[in-house]
Amino acid sequence: MALKELAERECLQLLASRVVGRVAVVVDGEARVFPVNYLIDGDDIVFRTGEGTKLDAARAGALVTFEVDDSDPLYHTGWSVMVRGPLERVTEPSELHRMHGLPVRAWGRDGRHIVRISIARVSGRRIERTPNGT
Amino acid sequence: MALKELAERECLQLLASRVVGRVAVVVDGEARVFPVNYLIDGDDIVFRTGEGTKLDAARAGALVTFEVDDSDPLYHTGWSVMVRGPLERVTEPSELHRMHGLPVRAWGRDGRHIVRISIARVSGRRIERTPNGT
Repeated sequence: MALKELAERECLQLLASRVVGRVAVVVDGEARVFPVNYLIDGDDIVFRTGEGTKLDAARAGALVTFEVDDSDPLYHTGWSVMVRGPLERVTEPSELHRMHGLPVRAWGRDGRHIVRISIARVSGRRIERTPNGT
Repeated sequence: MALKELAERECLQLLASRVVGRVAVVVDGEARVFPVNYLIDGDDIVFRTGEGTKLDAARAGALVTFEVDDSDPLYHTGWSVMVRGPLERVTEPSELHRMHGLPVRAWGRDGRHIVRISIARVSGRRIERTPNGT
């Protein structure tokens, strides 16, 4: 068994293949991790959020980590992709108008705010079977 | 649609229902998020790891966040559970011996070290449909 680093192109394909990811926000030195429904919009990950930790982070332009993964425990295969960047609230009216038409819903309750993270810093790993089958 | 806070008992049941979670480690103020195969051992979450960010965190006794979730995007239901606590390396020989017999494998490559997080600080949320169906 080996972990292979993924090329950027492959990371982008995997990001586009899922609809639920997680955002980790650091608050007082501790990570808080929240599932979000997301989509890829150009070079950004976009999701909705209401009042709370994520929106506070977006207002502060805080650096967050977005993660998606998939695993098959039976066959012991899997991959994970991480995107790191500042969380940004979308406030420009024409952008907001366009984004409210995108098919993305909040994971939980109220999701009236739209936030995004640039995919500029992306990395990923995949579990690969080694030739001896371990 | 509403987010309901889960009782501790329900969080523990949900934690026990999955085999892959994620560990978020804060490094230089940024969260790094890694999938792990885990199991519940008494009052701890236990997983294997090799050299790297997670083992460094365990050596330092760093505060980490463990998260599991499940979502059904079609029906827009889901839950997430978060555990926060110091990551601890298991080094006591009889404990190690016992734990090496537990059915937990590393998510990726080399997982010769066994680490754990106490489930003392657990919280969780579930998406619930509201009576008006939104």
